[in-house]
Amino acid sequence: MQKITILIHCKDRPNIIATVTNFVAEKQGNIVYIDQHVDREQNIFFMRLESEFVHETFSADAFRDAFKNTLADNFDMKWRIYSSARKPKMALFISKYDHCLYDLLGRYNSGELNLEIPFIISNHLDLKPIADSFKIPFFHIPVTKDTKELAEQQQLELLESHNIDFIVLARYMQIISPKLISKYPNKIINIHHSFLPAFVGAKPYHSAFKRGVKIIGATSHYVTEELDAGPIIDQGVARVSHTHSIEDLIAKGRDLEKIVLANAVKLHTNRKVMVYNNKTVIFS
Amino acid sequence: MQKITILIHCKDRPNIIATVTNFVAEKQGNIVYIDQHVDREQNIFFMRLESEFVHETFSADAFRDAFKNTLADNFDMKWRIYSSARKPKMALFISKYDHCLYDLLGRYNSGELNLEIPFIISNHLDLKPIADSFKIPFFHIPVTKDTKELAEQQQLELLESHNIDFIVLARYMQIISPKLISKYPNKIINIHHSFLPAFVGAKPYHSAFKRGVKIIGATSHYVTEELDAGPIIDQGVARVSHTHSIEDLIAKGRDLEKIVLANAVKLHTNRKVMVYNNKTVIFS
Amino acid sequence: MQKITILIHCKDRPNIIATVTNFVAEKQGNIVYIDQHVDREQNIFFMRLESEFVHETFSADAFRDAFKNTLADNFDMKWRIYSSARKPKMALFISKYDHCLYDLLGRYNSGELNLEIPFIISNHLDLKPIADSFKIPFFHIPVTKDTKELAEQQQLELLESHNIDFIVLARYMQIISPKLISKYPNKIINIHHSFLPAFVGAKPYHSAFKRGVKIIGATSHYVTEELDAGPIIDQGVARVSHTHSIEDLIAKGRDLEKIVLANAVKLHTNRKVMVYNNKTVIFS
Amino acid sequence: MQKITILIHCKDRPNIIATVTNFVAEKQGNIVYIDQHVDREQNIFFMRLESEFVHETFSADAFRDAFKNTLADNFDMKWRIYSSARKPKMALFISKYDHCLYDLLGRYNSGELNLEIPFIISNHLDLKPIADSFKIPFFHIPVTKDTKELAEQQQLELLESHNIDFIVLARYMQIISPKLISKYPNKIINIHHSFLPAFVGAKPYHSAFKRGVKIIGATSHYVTEELDAGPIIDQGVARVSHTHSIEDLIAKGRDLEKIVLANAVKLHTNRKVMVYNNKTVIFS
Repeated sequence: MQKITILIHCKDRPNIIATVTNFVAEKQGNIVYIDQHVDREQNIFFMRLESEFVHETFSADAFRDAFKNTLADNFDMKWRIYSSARKPKMALFISKYDHCLYDLLGRYNSGELNLEIPFIISNHLDLKPIADSFKIPFFHIPVTKDTKELAEQQQLELLESHNIDFIVLARYMQIISPKLISKYPNKIINIHHSFLPAFVGAKPYHSAFKRGVKIIGATSHYVTEELDAGPIIDQGVARVSHTHSIEDLIAKGRDLEKIVLANAVKLHTNRKVMVYNNKTVIFS
Repeated sequence: MQKITILIHCKDRPNIIATVTNFVAEKQGNIVYIDQHVDREQNIFFMRLESEFVHETFSADAFRDAFKNTLADNFDMKWRIYSSARKPKMALFISKYDHCLYDLLGRYNSGELNLEIPFIISNHLDLKPIADSFKIPFFHIPVTKDTKELAEQQQLELLESHNIDFIVLARYMQIISPKLISKYPNKIINIHHSFLPAFVGAKPYHSAFKRGVKIIGATSHYVTEELDAGPIIDQGVARVSHTHSIEDLIAKGRDLEKIVLANAVKLHTNRKVMVYNNKTVIFS
Repeated sequence: MQKITILIHCKDRPNIIATVTNFVAEKQGNIVYIDQHVDREQNIFFMRLESEFVHETFSADAFRDAFKNTLADNFDMKWRIYSSARKPKMALFISKYDHCLYDLLGRYNSGELNLEIPFIISNHLDLKPIADSFKIPFFHIPVTKDTKELAEQQQLELLESHNIDFIVLARYMQIISPKLISKYPNKIINIHHSFLPAFVGAKPYHSAFKRGVKIIGATSHYVTEELDAGPIIDQGVARVSHTHSIEDLIAKGRDLEKIVLANAVKLHTNRKVMVYNNKTVIFS
Repeated sequence: MQKITILIHCKDRPNIIATVTNFVAEKQGNIVYIDQHVDREQNIFFMRLESEFVHETFSADAFRDAFKNTLADNFDMKWRIYSSARKPKMALFISKYDHCLYDLLGRYNSGELNLEIPFIISNHLDLKPIADSFKIPFFHIPVTKDTKELAEQQQLELLESHNIDFIVLARYMQIISPKLISKYPNKIINIHHSFLPAFVGAKPYHSAFKRGVKIIGATSHYVTEELDAGPIIDQGVARVSHTHSIEDLIAKGRDLEKIVLANAVKLHTNRKVMVYNNKTVIFS
């Protein structure tokens, strides 16, 4: 049995659902999941559909071709069809903070994540022992003002030579360049340690402390050129009070960051996220 | 324009979605919402679909007939089709606690609830002034051991003569009889002041205090013959600590009860709840 | 028996706690609650203490004098001593939204709030029937560009003639002038319908929708001259998703606003809030 | 500078706070934290106090003696005085689930936990590689019906020879015997994968799924002889829906378990938990 996931968005108009479900039925697919959304402000239709195919002759590529010619072009759809046969490949970018790294690698080792991690890149050597203990290749690519361009070139070569599908910045403390972003549009996931759009930029826990908020947050989002302004995938919050120092906020925040980033990774790899107009549609 | 909501459940099998969406398309309906769920343990398929019809000649009754004959009987579906033209009628049962009453009537007056409240029944007179101030007819039906049967008869007559669709027990402190339950199956909503299944029965805040829980809850559910064991519609929780007395738990709980009951009322009246095997499927 | 609540803050130094608790013990008081906090960044000590006095001869005023002369002046304390004998008087300012009004009046009528509401002021007539049904005097003071100064004069006269202790802006849609703020410093509570500091200013739900946040919030805070930037008292949050329209956010937000504002009112009237450096210390 | 933490509980009576704070002041201690609680139902007074001593001659042992003789015996106090000089030693008991293990060891390695882990005990060999990668001694003590008593003897010897202060059952799948419990009263922390007291015993996620709850939970508690009925330290919850399978509940629950167990470990090692009447007082 093969399983495919179809993601579609296009201008809303009547009968899209019936047309798509019909098409899948004609191809002998059994729809096991369907969800749809209409953004009434933008008049955009979104759909996520999972279908199982039992015929031995089923070919995901042939299905894609037929879908494109019969349906997608007519409705002027943006679409993607993923086969469950291939696990997405994730590159991890880290610096010196280890909590998200431990969390993701622990989940990875437990089999909780449906992905492969071909390697880890860091601009520091500090966390190499953790990568080693989990037996994941670790590449040290330092970044200074002078070496930034070269470093990026090295990163790109690694990403391309390993056929990386998406990148996770697990508290990677460097700005990603427009060039890299443009090569991985909506495929670079960052964790920001605040409840965006509050406290954009550096040291958000310090700002939260100074403002005296009663709830802190963390936000996972796709990276776009504007800092901390990309499409939000998930957010989490925790109560704090005057008794908490900045260090307490940072410690509490670590637990938020771990979970909010892991949620984003799972949603992305399970093909549950669509992006439109700098916002996400999450079919969960 | 008319709008209908279709709720379906039946044994799962291939092509139900395509068949139903086709049917609606044939009848010139534009599907504006579709959601589906398969309970893989029970092998049951659930579906909720909203469709708009612009043709002047559209008749919800004719659609129902066609749906039944063409589709529902073939697939052995349990189904309901609601027209947006009719607002559901809700009877409120209350006793002496006023917080859920104030909350629901405040929302009702603000136009937040898509329903009508033909009357309020109470076994006490205490809250009549509130009903009066909101200009809702109030019927005082006292319940004692001796008058229980008579009281129920009076209740039933009121319910039937006003074509009541569903009943909300807003902290009504009497047990509902099997007879009344059987006449309104999955149509009587209760709010229980605990996180069910913890603390079934009387005085749950006292039990929660005694057990030393760190989180309290409230649960809205459909009433079945077994006490506090009916299908759960919504639950809410709030943190508590050793500093909270029983009275504090009760006060904090009131806010949970109000919101969890109001959520259930909204989900029910918006036709978003299906019941199967003593559990709910909530298409929200 | 009389009960007093002491709130203190001053520069931190050794032995404040022992000195204060000794003083209360000497005056035959039994301390039933003590909590303290040190802001280590600012080196400021905060304390809240409740004490019961059973002697018939106890006088809160005499206690205040002795406290001032013996203790407060030595330690250069900012302090307040409240007697439980007097309920605080709250003025409600409203405009056209009724949800916070219904919520507060429902709680007030149920005896949940330890305060008096001598009157309600509104710049519109729409909600007068609600004030009437709860039998609270309602003053209609319209505010236009031309009448703003006059309106404020009328407000001040009402506030002063009724010995109002604090003001609650229950979705009052006018800017409060610096003059009024300076007369009620940290005594005007506002509810802002966002998770501050995100979405300051008008139409925060629209901004939240546009940004695609996954969690919305509400914030109660004391009013200062800078818009939506005063000390935060409480915050609440709720999950949202792409399925929610702006109207859905507004509806969900109403429940947050009600609870977050009611919490602030309860904390304030129970003398649990201290303000320092535009932040609150909440002894809850 | 030395720092001590004093935990006290005794029958409530006037002037305890003044007497204790006086005593500390006499000994040249500067109180940097004080919190107190009175259980009015039981009439029990609880207190937690942190004090710093700068004199070189300060001796925690001498302080303990003086405290006992001057104060504790008079007031018939239960008390403990901890010096910050000594880190508590924690033994980890595990079986086959690795998520709590990864989480605790990640925090331990990051320096987030104020404790030492002399060893890990498991009744299975599966997780030995993880212990190895974190360089923590691992003892494999299998438990079968026949070897249960012997196994316990081995456990006790390890615990005693390493001066273990408390035990954490990180999803250890064996019942702890009354003998071991009596040697470590309120010093064995368990994580139960439900919102206690709902779903006591085995397979709580299965029971939660069957009941159709809309929120699942996890509970950390001290182990007592009655299964899952000991004093609750912390609880956490997460929303679920009909779309979640049992496996989804288990996966979501893992994140709850990790955080709720870590919270308990931190509260315990920071001496913030007192136990009375099978309930906890948490001074956080």
